[in-house]
Amino acid sequence: MYQNPWKTLTSRTAYENAWLRVREDQVIRPDGNPGIYGVIEIRPSVGVVALNERDEMVLVGQWRYVLNRYSWEIPRGGSHAGETDMQKVAKRELAEEAGVHASHWHSMGTVDVGNGVLDDVQSLFLATELSATNTNFDAEEDITIVWKPFDEAVTMAMDGTITEVCSIAAILRVAMLRQQKKA
Amino acid sequence: MYQNPWKTLTSRTAYENAWLRVREDQVIRPDGNPGIYGVIEIRPSVGVVALNERDEMVLVGQWRYVLNRYSWEIPRGGSHAGETDMQKVAKRELAEEAGVHASHWHSMGTVDVGNGVLDDVQSLFLATELSATNTNFDAEEDITIVWKPFDEAVTMAMDGTITEVCSIAAILRVAMLRQQKKA
Repeated sequence: MYQNPWKTLTSRTAYENAWLRVREDQVIRPDGNPGIYGVIEIRPSVGVVALNERDEMVLVGQWRYVLNRYSWEIPRGGSHAGETDMQKVAKRELAEEAGVHASHWHSMGTVDVGNGVLDDVQSLFLATELSATNTNFDAEEDITIVWKPFDEAVTMAMDGTITEVCSIAAILRVAMLRQQKKA
Repeated sequence: MYQNPWKTLTSRTAYENAWLRVREDQVIRPDGNPGIYGVIEIRPSVGVVALNERDEMVLVGQWRYVLNRYSWEIPRGGSHAGETDMQKVAKRELAEEAGVHASHWHSMGTVDVGNGVLDDVQSLFLATELSATNTNFDAEEDITIVWKPFDEAVTMAMDGTITEVCSIAAILRVAMLRQQKKA
């Protein structure tokens, strides 16, 4: 239906580390003029709203180096190279970060994060029927776990206590899904 | 309350273009071991839910080069260097992308976008009391404008028609605010 108005002439790796690659493309822009586009490539990621039988949601708190402040979020994380089963990635992240195993998984689709520069596509899940397992943090992670009544988590997603956008989108999607069920 | 568990030893610019800067820091990680952190610096951004008197919301469609597909989103855009008044930026973006001027502005706070690698903080607004003005696209932009009944926009934010995460968070925040008003 919609045609790509961009033309890519050449691509080069401008920077790379273990987590991301910066690609600089020489392009012809939609207006027909030459230009460049810097694309940040990272691996697809996941985010999980996990609710226990008391209708409490797990939130993980960590210092976000990039923003230089603390952040409360749903358990989120990146896939490993070559992984394509995002529910499997979500299971691992939920176990590693929150120490939780879930028997029931509901997909809430994918969201695009920072799509002007970043190619991150994050798969969102609602996980229920939880049981405890062992956490296993990455070396970069220094994580605090809290369980909040779901209604309180919605308030946190509305009032600016939670600022991370995938967490906000995921929590509000669950809130809306519940209201649609009730209606 | 929470202390930064990271230590930054040195910083260098690894890559830079007109839109972003990649900074590579030498760090001591939370686990005490040395490492690096690649930070993508971009200017703060804005996103606007704009509703007309028929309760229709403006959506802008454009090809997203980074994802290589078309995307329907709320009007969004980055600030210019040195700009600090994000409502002013939002006014400009709404005019440039959607051809709309709004007399009433309600702040919906800020969201962090891609906070594992990106320092983007996007200010979200609800704009009403609209009047027409002239669009003025950037050279990178090839934009289609549609007006959708707000309820339909909420459905699009729920069913995966809209995938851009700031648009989803902003639309669902407005939907929740309306329900809270009704209750």
